[in-house]
Amino acid sequence: MPISKLRDSSCSVARSLSVLGERWTLLVVREALSGTTRFETFRENLGVAADVLSDRLTTLVDCGVLRREAYQEAGRRTQFEYFLTETGLELHVVVGALQQWGDQHLPRPEGPSVIRQSKSTATPVKVAFVDESGREIPEDDVAIVDVESRMTQPA
Amino acid sequence: MPISKLRDSSCSVARSLSVLGERWTLLVVREALSGTTRFETFRENLGVAADVLSDRLTTLVDCGVLRREAYQEAGRRTQFEYFLTETGLELHVVVGALQQWGDQHLPRPEGPSVIRQSKSTATPVKVAFVDESGREIPEDDVAIVDVESRMTQPA
Repeated sequence: MPISKLRDSSCSVARSLSVLGERWTLLVVREALSGTTRFETFRENLGVAADVLSDRLTTLVDCGVLRREAYQEAGRRTQFEYFLTETGLELHVVVGALQQWGDQHLPRPEGPSVIRQSKSTATPVKVAFVDESGREIPEDDVAIVDVESRMTQPA
Repeated sequence: MPISKLRDSSCSVARSLSVLGERWTLLVVREALSGTTRFETFRENLGVAADVLSDRLTTLVDCGVLRREAYQEAGRRTQFEYFLTETGLELHVVVGALQQWGDQHLPRPEGPSVIRQSKSTATPVKVAFVDESGREIPEDDVAIVDVESRMTQPA
């Protein structure tokens, strides 16, 4: 299905994937979350071809996940840095959920390469469903409700 | 990068995407979370070509996200149903995070097509970072820590 068609989908998973579903896109976001801003650093850390990276960065700027800022080093031409916008920072929970699932179900012998922890307490952090009061609730208490028909479907 | 290479990656986002990153795969999981089990229902609800769907279902069975069960209707040949495993159910939070981001940043005029709520209290549910005690913590309190170098990188 062409991306434009996915973007019109009634399903927000399909719409999100229209932006994020291309190979490398979420890896670029992961890299940006770890503090990478420069093209060469993205390219080296991800081991991705320059033309693919350039294409993914453009997509992410166009859809408001990254913003581009010019910088210039002495005697060199103007270059660009890429920073996550508020919209981009809100992808942290998506990347965190993918990382958590991979570490649990596709583990590597050496264990996880990164972990997440609270800056204020230095204790581990995970991604979970929470209720309105901000309390974690178990996955099997979560119902997917079809808004159009108002029918509860089994989760 | 070939999938086998991604699967060996030190990064669990890359490993997760080696299984989930192909177009349609997470949409198949979303559909399964909503209770779909039969090939024809997946095909109709997703509008996906039969050969692509067949390929994605096989991948998801192979990697332990779905399990396949035979069933037979009177006078017809044996067919298969697909059910989420425990590993598959743990993708709910990934799909939920994508849906939430899409509804917020790529909204459609009519609003979201599905919402999530607690089965026990019928109040809204979202995906968030939580600490060890199960309390929600804000995204800007989450640090990504490189386990190999034990250096904290800006999130």
